[in-house]
Amino acid sequence: MRWDPAVTRERCTRLVQSLPAIEWITDSRVDRLSQDFNGFSPVLKRQLGHLRADVVVRPQTEDQIRAVVAACARESVPITLRGSGTGNYGQCVPLHGGVVIDLSAYNQLLWSRPGVGRAQAGIRMLEMDRQTPGWELRCVPSTWRSATLGGLFGGGFGGVGSINHGPLASPGNVLGVKVMSIEPEPQTFELRAPEAMLLHHVYGCNGLVLELEVALAPALPWLEAIVCFDSFDAALEFADVLAAAPGLVKKNVTLLAAPIPDLLLKAAPVLAGGMAPGSHAVFLLLAEYGEPALQQLVQASGGRISYRKTADEVRQGKRTIVEYTWNHTTLHALKVDPGLTYIQSSFEPGRHVEQAKALRKLLGDEVLVHLEFLRNLQGALTCAGLQLVRYRSDERLNEIMQIHREHGVAINNPHAFIVEDGKQSRINPEAVAIKRRFDPAGLLNPGKLRGWAPQHPPTAPVGL
Amino acid sequence: MRWDPAVTRERCTRLVQSLPAIEWITDSRVDRLSQDFNGFSPVLKRQLGHLRADVVVRPQTEDQIRAVVAACARESVPITLRGSGTGNYGQCVPLHGGVVIDLSAYNQLLWSRPGVGRAQAGIRMLEMDRQTPGWELRCVPSTWRSATLGGLFGGGFGGVGSINHGPLASPGNVLGVKVMSIEPEPQTFELRAPEAMLLHHVYGCNGLVLELEVALAPALPWLEAIVCFDSFDAALEFADVLAAAPGLVKKNVTLLAAPIPDLLLKAAPVLAGGMAPGSHAVFLLLAEYGEPALQQLVQASGGRISYRKTADEVRQGKRTIVEYTWNHTTLHALKVDPGLTYIQSSFEPGRHVEQAKALRKLLGDEVLVHLEFLRNLQGALTCAGLQLVRYRSDERLNEIMQIHREHGVAINNPHAFIVEDGKQSRINPEAVAIKRRFDPAGLLNPGKLRGWAPQHPPTAPVGL
Repeated sequence: MRWDPAVTRERCTRLVQSLPAIEWITDSRVDRLSQDFNGFSPVLKRQLGHLRADVVVRPQTEDQIRAVVAACARESVPITLRGSGTGNYGQCVPLHGGVVIDLSAYNQLLWSRPGVGRAQAGIRMLEMDRQTPGWELRCVPSTWRSATLGGLFGGGFGGVGSINHGPLASPGNVLGVKVMSIEPEPQTFELRAPEAMLLHHVYGCNGLVLELEVALAPALPWLEAIVCFDSFDAALEFADVLAAAPGLVKKNVTLLAAPIPDLLLKAAPVLAGGMAPGSHAVFLLLAEYGEPALQQLVQASGGRISYRKTADEVRQGKRTIVEYTWNHTTLHALKVDPGLTYIQSSFEPGRHVEQAKALRKLLGDEVLVHLEFLRNLQGALTCAGLQLVRYRSDERLNEIMQIHREHGVAINNPHAFIVEDGKQSRINPEAVAIKRRFDPAGLLNPGKLRGWAPQHPPTAPVGL
Repeated sequence: MRWDPAVTRERCTRLVQSLPAIEWITDSRVDRLSQDFNGFSPVLKRQLGHLRADVVVRPQTEDQIRAVVAACARESVPITLRGSGTGNYGQCVPLHGGVVIDLSAYNQLLWSRPGVGRAQAGIRMLEMDRQTPGWELRCVPSTWRSATLGGLFGGGFGGVGSINHGPLASPGNVLGVKVMSIEPEPQTFELRAPEAMLLHHVYGCNGLVLELEVALAPALPWLEAIVCFDSFDAALEFADVLAAAPGLVKKNVTLLAAPIPDLLLKAAPVLAGGMAPGSHAVFLLLAEYGEPALQQLVQASGGRISYRKTADEVRQGKRTIVEYTWNHTTLHALKVDPGLTYIQSSFEPGRHVEQAKALRKLLGDEVLVHLEFLRNLQGALTCAGLQLVRYRSDERLNEIMQIHREHGVAINNPHAFIVEDGKQSRINPEAVAIKRRFDPAGLLNPGKLRGWAPQHPPTAPVGL
């Protein structure tokens, strides 16, 4: 076996000693800094929950990063890259120990101009938004308060704002990245899009991204509102019409079918407003000046606005409904009901409403429907599902995913930790090939990228 | 006959005398101020080209407007409302003489705040954009340099920017209007959307709109470019992909099939750049920071960028390719080749590319394809055609329109001057009903709104 834990541990000890000026973490915090939110999945928790780095390092400058990388390359120590650890597929969990490089202290905004910003990978997205007045990141996860820009690029998808700009991978959203190679004498390279995108969503396994240059969107005054419905179909149709309406500028539209709103209210009673138990709810962020047209649409759809905060109120109250959407919904729901797990799915543009209705009818109370409206890579309006599932068995979870596929809904398996397994076993071969350039010795979290090591035996069936 | 020209003329003379402090125009300028660009259509030119107001008045204040309206109502004189006269369906041509109220001197921006502006109806759209730094109107015609906001609302559709915000009629684009009633003692009313929209695109026949409050879009640095193709299909597919791409922020995408670019170059040789004769061209406005992704897309599509100006260059050069799109294309082409006329059409979202290819194949060189990409009222991406047609006869023009209909492409007849005839004989009955409130004596350009006067004999067949 290439990675002998005892040998790696010993080498790590030498590393720490050889670079005393850098912040190393060797105490119990290593446990937390080796993990992410993979506990969302009972499967991943079983597979990854016990894994630990030998040591965590928190460099603050490119020189410090270079020194750490060079030393690891010389000693042949595995490196796992980490932002804030808000992912939930074990993206930053080291499979073979070694060093976790926590990039959260490497976090400066380098520059911004109208429409574009460039920052070090460890910048928190909320912090970047704060430092680019008048502009904001085009699409962010619900965790943007703590999550890093590099983490979004390395292990994320998009999120709030994708209803306008699609996923992060849509051409035009990322303009370039600076990469460091994992070698005894590390080199840096500026990659512009589309080449830069070869490092996107490969979990930091094919290069160390130091800096990111991304397009920004105008920061508008976002009204936050929750609209409640007695009928699932009415809520779904409202959300779809709102999502598509070209005169209503919005940043997010989330559909949470009953009983998800009831679960969320246990986590955040303040959201309740006039929401009746058993309601289906649409959580939305809308440019404030669209409110009159929103009210018309709500009225025509038979909905009720149960919660409403202006942009100023959101700023002052420091609470945003964003933190009850996307995978924050999952987080809150699983806390309230640990018997739940979830699946991720992509509906077919144009058929998404019909598909969602049919599946709801078929699966009843077993699947709690959570849909996020967005534009896909090509710009077609559709929705992505982060459905909560009452977990009975791996077999039944499999069946439920299969039923979705049979209805034309693609499944992105959130119960897999190998890069390809989360991508329906497909990965761009160029993304694997570029690893030869940036990580010739295969030190970046070995085992994560199956395409890199065909000699590596296939991962044991993960039960799903 | 209700409208005796001699009687109206006499009454107008009294009006002018009774209100000496207001700017009246009675000289030869009345000819021009009674007409618009209806000459685009040989049919309308025949029907409307000879029509004249008795007098034109150019009020500067609401009080002056009120005085004119009150006097007209007392004297029972027809009133026709006019902006800058850039329409081309005879929207502002008086059918029974009387007074034309030219609102172009009633043109103050009243206020603006982020995302919203309110102005008097006669403000030129370019002027409004200038006075709202950082923001711009969401959708404007290619004539926005001279055309008025009230004119767009009264007789227009949308245009540049509709690729983001749909037509002006999409909920959220217009927030409210102030209306004056045509009565001996005129009253004013604030109408908020959606009620305000009952006065939209009724050619100023059901109320006098004094002020408009509209949503604005962030003003981005728009790069202007022309991309050339040897193949029509490649140009069309490029335009469609670009129009939909969610990471590429744009303001306009126009497809001009050969030989339209060659015609335009006769009007503006400066546009030529590296454009080869016989090229199919895509004229586009794109946020500057999208240029690298644009270049990728151009390369992948087999196109060539033949013309490129940054936002700064456009500002300094005072030339914009906007003025070669939408109905400016028609204007230039008809000047170069008076044997052309045009039709307007709406393609079916999702099938628009296939429809455009099929029609091009079928109609060959007889129809010069001009497509504007936009979102429809509901937000679906599609294109609108302003196809140039080599005019042979009314019968053949009819046939061509019928062939479009048979392919699922709706025709908006630009050879009709009655409100309903341009709307496939449909009009919201509430828009007619509201005329009873704001124009009880039916003085606003009598004859324009057929639904108002069922006793009026049907318009003679217009030959189409």
